Amino acid sequence: MKHTKIVDLLTGKNLLHEVKAKGWVRTFRNNQFIALNDGSTINNIQCVVDLDKFPAELLKKIHTGAALSVTGTLVESQGAGQTVEIQVNKLKVYGEANPEEYPIQPKKHSLEFLRENAHLRVRTNIFGAIMRVRSTLSYAVHKYFQENGFFYFNAPIITGSDAEGAGEMFRVTNLDLNNLPRTEEGNINFKEDFFGKTTNLTVSGQLEAETYAMALGSVYTFGPTFRAENSNTSRHLAEFWMIEPEVAFNDLDDNMDLAEDFIKYVIKYTLEKCQDDLVFLDKRLQDEEKNKPQAERSGMSLLEKLNFVVENNFKRVSYTEAVDILRNCKPNKNKKFKYIIDGWGADLQSEHERYLVEKHFKCPVILFDYPAEIKAFYMRMNEDGKTVRAMDILFPGIGEIVGGSEREERYDVLVEKMKAMGIEEEELWWYLDTRKFGTAPHSGFGLGFERLVLFATGMTNIRDVIPFPRTPQSAEF
Amino acid sequence: MKHTKIVDLLTGKNLLHEVKAKGWVRTFRNNQFIALNDGSTINNIQCVVDLDKFPAELLKKIHTGAALSVTGTLVESQGAGQTVEIQVNKLKVYGEANPEEYPIQPKKHSLEFLRENAHLRVRTNIFGAIMRVRSTLSYAVHKYFQENGFFYFNAPIITGSDAEGAGEMFRVTNLDLNNLPRTEEGNINFKEDFFGKTTNLTVSGQLEAETYAMALGSVYTFGPTFRAENSNTSRHLAEFWMIEPEVAFNDLDDNMDLAEDFIKYVIKYTLEKCQDDLVFLDKRLQDEEKNKPQAERSGMSLLEKLNFVVENNFKRVSYTEAVDILRNCKPNKNKKFKYIIDGWGADLQSEHERYLVEKHFKCPVILFDYPAEIKAFYMRMNEDGKTVRAMDILFPGIGEIVGGSEREERYDVLVEKMKAMGIEEEELWWYLDTRKFGTAPHSGFGLGFERLVLFATGMTNIRDVIPFPRTPQSAEF
Repeated sequence: MKHTKIVDLLTGKNLLHEVKAKGWVRTFRNNQFIALNDGSTINNIQCVVDLDKFPAELLKKIHTGAALSVTGTLVESQGAGQTVEIQVNKLKVYGEANPEEYPIQPKKHSLEFLRENAHLRVRTNIFGAIMRVRSTLSYAVHKYFQENGFFYFNAPIITGSDAEGAGEMFRVTNLDLNNLPRTEEGNINFKEDFFGKTTNLTVSGQLEAETYAMALGSVYTFGPTFRAENSNTSRHLAEFWMIEPEVAFNDLDDNMDLAEDFIKYVIKYTLEKCQDDLVFLDKRLQDEEKNKPQAERSGMSLLEKLNFVVENNFKRVSYTEAVDILRNCKPNKNKKFKYIIDGWGADLQSEHERYLVEKHFKCPVILFDYPAEIKAFYMRMNEDGKTVRAMDILFPGIGEIVGGSEREERYDVLVEKMKAMGIEEEELWWYLDTRKFGTAPHSGFGLGFERLVLFATGMTNIRDVIPFPRTPQSAEF
Repeated sequence: MKHTKIVDLLTGKNLLHEVKAKGWVRTFRNNQFIALNDGSTINNIQCVVDLDKFPAELLKKIHTGAALSVTGTLVESQGAGQTVEIQVNKLKVYGEANPEEYPIQPKKHSLEFLRENAHLRVRTNIFGAIMRVRSTLSYAVHKYFQENGFFYFNAPIITGSDAEGAGEMFRVTNLDLNNLPRTEEGNINFKEDFFGKTTNLTVSGQLEAETYAMALGSVYTFGPTFRAENSNTSRHLAEFWMIEPEVAFNDLDDNMDLAEDFIKYVIKYTLEKCQDDLVFLDKRLQDEEKNKPQAERSGMSLLEKLNFVVENNFKRVSYTEAVDILRNCKPNKNKKFKYIIDGWGADLQSEHERYLVEKHFKCPVILFDYPAEIKAFYMRMNEDGKTVRAMDILFPGIGEIVGGSEREERYDVLVEKMKAMGIEEEELWWYLDTRKFGTAPHSGFGLGFERLVLFATGMTNIRDVIPFPRTPQSAEF
């Protein structure tokens, strides 16, 4: 007899029939009630064991974490909090979990402790919920783009170009570091490396995605990207997943429309599909917040925040307007900001972004038309000659979640900009070709997937929303 | 006025209305007929220009590859091969493409030439078709798993473990190779590297996926994997995308059922969604085959092959049966094989796999129960003590497309096997934990995504089915 997933058993469709469930014991109460979970849902199915029917030495093997196969009749449950349960007829223990050794006991573990046990933490309610939400969000990403005529584009991970400019890169090499080949001049001879030159891990697939947008029209990447930056914060990972749509003929307004519509869609989809997990995470966050001083508490619950994003327009504000607001705001005047805003042109810090989103506008904000000097070489110059068609989307509690722009499609302007920024034309000959042959306006953005998962789950440390986080000094498992 | 994608215009829904299209010129005939393509479909829309309406110097800018915006009335077409066309009223040239310089002219280019222009080759019919099929196959992968209760799992790309054993690995480092830090003993001090130890690019996410399957039940990876092997063949890439489902409580038969059902689903879905692209690729392959000697031609067209896979059962054959067939077959007896099969236990070579699939069974074949000695340490030992519960799926023209197994879930047997194969327990302490706590039978497989795209498109060189291929001595763009 085939077993049925617990998520399907709990619908109660097979009431009074014999069913089989397989999963792991969450708790075993009174030598009678097994709460069994198989990961298909956050909810357990209660399996009721008649003590007299089973040998004591079999029941002794049933501890939290043990793997079981359970066969019995699905009946209406008398207990509170569940609708159906299994009256067990047959019981098989696949694998035990010695309670003296098994780290995941039915009690509250700290997130730090669980991070050290990243290979087991997904067996807890909280990480099970996070990872199911993560999976659903991923699918929503593909669904949105595929249903809107985008093509999935796999940007290369290993890149010979180091001109992407989005951050420090990791080197990829096959050379024997203990015996590096040398040129006659005594330099390392990278011609003998696997790819015949120096290579790095990509920091962004955007430039390559642009070459595809200029042929397929609308494309998106969704893949891992890397930053070799020594940032030990709760918002940075050395390895993270990024989503980068790129659309031919889109200007910056179209780009903002796309980003807003996309984010609303994936959150709405997840609200519909992950109700039980989100209710659990909502309650967890409320419990966490109770321990915080009133002033630090978020005014909204997780579910309220998610619904708010789906139902309200993002506020669109130019960089220049934002600087005016910041210059005149209380924390700036009272010198409560670490970085005081006293003029136009400075890059905004996280404290400023949070002020705008959390205190001033109290909703997601799209900032646009940034000073050219603080933005990347490929962003389109405005008529004013000092701002570029860039946009950042700022989210409450998260900060920057999206960075995008209309791209500089004018060959001469782009070459000029690259010269000014010291980027070699020969490095990016292929990128320049897209402006030389059939160039057209186009726009795109990058969204750090883990920041989206942070927002959707109400978690606060980015290490808790990716299965095996990579950060400075840490690449376990 | 917003523009409409050409794929939507061609449905003819807006007949007699004013429409706008944006795209790139494929051809411009008689100073009158522009074939415009925007990548949304392989089909162009014909735009008819009235010479007298437009200045000659504007029309002079229209060459193959130029980017245009075209506004006009959508009317029924008089010409052959198209149902609707645009009678142009307004015409804007975004970007020209100097025919003296633009490499992608309307003539047959060799695949080698296009590989050197990988940033532009997607502007041809053939690569547009391949990449749309690739995107559709990707989506079908997610759709299949998500609709069948699997959770998407992102395996780490940078790994501190080198025990995966699937092949040579690339090193990832942040050290200054010109000034390597040394320990007192004079060794390279990897404690000063970014992660505080040596790290590599993953060759497989399987071991980590197993830890998630033992909590969430059914999971799958779909991400890049790497092999630093100097294989300059038409079937190997240094960077490729792999799909790795892993399912708790599945035995090897369930695993074979899953793999077969999955492959049939994604091919069926692609047949439905990519009809125009597949018809084009089918015709291309037929033209290619005409240049081959009769004996080397495939008996079936591309569409026939794809339908054959969807409609027929894969043949399941044990390794032992396969060796019997091979030992007694003509090419073995006549010593036509490079590697003669004379006994049980040898690893099968590509020539043997092709014989079984293409000559003997003439359909996809699943081989199972391989000799333990030629397979990985984590595969479950059979009762016979000499074979393991492994399976490979072999496809006509492609060879091995899937490799999988039921995993060794017995702690003691696994530790014994690791010892025998020289794999350190301390390296894989976390993997062993899954067998120590709540172990259960489970199975999974790996499918090289590019091999699937090769099969679905009828292409023969794996460099042609990934946007920017990485191979020995080549990491351009």
